[in-house]
Amino acid sequence: MNRLGGIMGKGLRYLTQTEAIKVDQELFNEYRFSVDQLMELAGLSCASAIRSAFPEATRVLVLCGPGNNGGDGLVCARHLGLFGYSPSVLYPKQPDKPLFANLVHQCREMGIPFVPVDAVIPGEYQLLVDALFGFSFKPPIRAPFGSLIDAMAASSVPVASVDVPSGWDVEKGPPEGVSVRPKLLVSLTAPKKCAEFFDGPFHFLGGRFVPQKLAEKYSLDLPEYPGSDQCVRI
Amino acid sequence: MNRLGGIMGKGLRYLTQTEAIKVDQELFNEYRFSVDQLMELAGLSCASAIRSAFPEATRVLVLCGPGNNGGDGLVCARHLGLFGYSPSVLYPKQPDKPLFANLVHQCREMGIPFVPVDAVIPGEYQLLVDALFGFSFKPPIRAPFGSLIDAMAASSVPVASVDVPSGWDVEKGPPEGVSVRPKLLVSLTAPKKCAEFFDGPFHFLGGRFVPQKLAEKYSLDLPEYPGSDQCVRI
Repeated sequence: MNRLGGIMGKGLRYLTQTEAIKVDQELFNEYRFSVDQLMELAGLSCASAIRSAFPEATRVLVLCGPGNNGGDGLVCARHLGLFGYSPSVLYPKQPDKPLFANLVHQCREMGIPFVPVDAVIPGEYQLLVDALFGFSFKPPIRAPFGSLIDAMAASSVPVASVDVPSGWDVEKGPPEGVSVRPKLLVSLTAPKKCAEFFDGPFHFLGGRFVPQKLAEKYSLDLPEYPGSDQCVRI
Repeated sequence: MNRLGGIMGKGLRYLTQTEAIKVDQELFNEYRFSVDQLMELAGLSCASAIRSAFPEATRVLVLCGPGNNGGDGLVCARHLGLFGYSPSVLYPKQPDKPLFANLVHQCREMGIPFVPVDAVIPGEYQLLVDALFGFSFKPPIRAPFGSLIDAMAASSVPVASVDVPSGWDVEKGPPEGVSVRPKLLVSLTAPKKCAEFFDGPFHFLGGRFVPQKLAEKYSLDLPEYPGSDQCVRI
């Protein structure tokens, strides 16, 4: 049980990795959402949470991993651009799928620069968005992601993690030694167990697309989102 | 020039039908957005505008037409459900495409009832969402849409129109005689010329996905959206 959650009386449940994978599969298979739809809403909710937590940042580097967490990052970068931020994207391993190629194309056409790994100097940015690995992460971490995680962990620039802080075990949290310590965590759909170890100032829930029936099936007990907001602070 | 826009010094440009079609095609062909992505954002922005203009309504009937305007309506209905409204959907001509079939399935699985045409008594609802025809509309109006438009025009229940009030000429506005007179118009991407004839209390812009380069190409001079909001009152 998250301590703050306990104090505030919120019944939010923290999902195991297996539960998170099941919820995700149900959204696609039972409810027939497309990846395009949910990635758009997930990335938008991350950008919205960043807008709430870091309204003053302008130069933002979005680090995108090889899977769907990286796709959420690309969508987030695009919406950050629409919100008036100046995002750049680091995307070292781009999957050869139309979905991701189109998300990259949209960003490029909107004037978002893609920077090479060796050009990254975290101090040039005011915020790092960690969209490397999400709820399906299992070690080992392959190059160059290990060194990117190390750079985020060593940097004094605040980090905003999408769903799961990269390098963390999805259930057991941060590994021994130096690890990414995000200032903002945006849990998508529902928090994963590792979020119990999050000790930064801003924890948001995003991904406002969970059907009530699905929330009940997994006893998610999600908080109410205010108005038409796409994220809620928890 | 819209009078209020003139008074407020807004340079918003109202698009011809041909321009609206071109902007739409560029979004898909040049920027490589998927219909899923943009429909999701468009429908979300409509639901957000409804949340702003009619926060007290609960029983909402969303009337969906046979094209993409109807798809925006289905997405809008789903988000209204997530916002705490009790939407129902009227969808007399459902196209035989996976996109629309999946949007229907998502609504059904989220407990949104689909009502038959002959069961509609507008007075049972507190708001009618008009998602019958959009910017590509050309007459003639086929059955049963003519009678649905007549019912909306005759009803005392407020109407919220998605992009174009149904039955209106996209450029020349309302036809002679009785016509739909929406209280809320959500212009998507940019207002169409018919919006100059809109005289209801709530005009919103939605579809916050227009790349700056595209806005400049068509001199859209869009207003600033506040924060991470998906719609803005104009």
